[in-house]
Amino acid sequence: MGKEVIGLDTLTLRPVGYVRSPYQQPREVPRGPGAQHSAEGVLEILPEFEAGLKDIEGFSHLFVIWAFDRSEGFELVGTPPTDDRPHGVFATRSPRRPNPIALTVVELLRRDGARLHVRGVDMLEGTPILDIKPYLSGVAPEHLRRGWLDEAEARAANARG
Amino acid sequence: MGKEVIGLDTLTLRPVGYVRSPYQQPREVPRGPGAQHSAEGVLEILPEFEAGLKDIEGFSHLFVIWAFDRSEGFELVGTPPTDDRPHGVFATRSPRRPNPIALTVVELLRRDGARLHVRGVDMLEGTPILDIKPYLSGVAPEHLRRGWLDEAEARAANARG
Repeated sequence: MGKEVIGLDTLTLRPVGYVRSPYQQPREVPRGPGAQHSAEGVLEILPEFEAGLKDIEGFSHLFVIWAFDRSEGFELVGTPPTDDRPHGVFATRSPRRPNPIALTVVELLRRDGARLHVRGVDMLEGTPILDIKPYLSGVAPEHLRRGWLDEAEARAANARG
Repeated sequence: MGKEVIGLDTLTLRPVGYVRSPYQQPREVPRGPGAQHSAEGVLEILPEFEAGLKDIEGFSHLFVIWAFDRSEGFELVGTPPTDDRPHGVFATRSPRRPNPIALTVVELLRRDGARLHVRGVDMLEGTPILDIKPYLSGVAPEHLRRGWLDEAEARAANARG
């Protein structure tokens, strides 16, 4: 079983697979304004969960929910690499979160059994995968406001002249 | 602490808040082809995590990661309400997942202290919130393939004439 509830207030999760990534260390992952995530990697699903991949190859993009397994503790307010000002953790993608879970959208290139070859990994080698979901629709750019990130990018663009 | 690692292979999470939703029972949540999620609700963050909301009000949309706390066990292959054919759990949004975690994109209407008023809830009243992240960008519709879901919708449209 992948789920075990202890008491009423906690939820225990376990990996359904692991990421094969070109990145071994956090500093290798592109970060900051304009960072591109075009790295290819593999989502290796454990054999016991492979049946759950049926028909996933029809989707071009996937949500991957994964664990920040090399992050310690959390910081409610911190300064992200994309800015020089502090913001609340729920307004950033910081790994130092109350629950150390992460979300990445990847492009599915092909499926090879229990191995999903994807583009857009920003995880480290060996990262535990908690869940995969199909990407069904996005919010159009013209409907998005991105708060401090837009402001930081505008300041950075001005500073560059 | 919101994180506690037990051994190497499990991750224990706890709620950072709870959803106030108009839906009391699963059958009340719109499902199936063309379901619209325009219901308004509130994400109530626990007082100890309120500082983590700093600057979140600048974002129009948020990812909410939450727990399917009323789901039991999992099913690797099942038939979703949007189709009459079975698909793998990682190719659906079924609540009966190896790790019972869910992802919803909501529109942030306003913040009132630790209460985020949002549009687009599909959670039940009292659902535990595990994390909130800013929505930064989406995949353009012209780049998306949606596998069995597109096929099921096409069949449904043909059946309607």
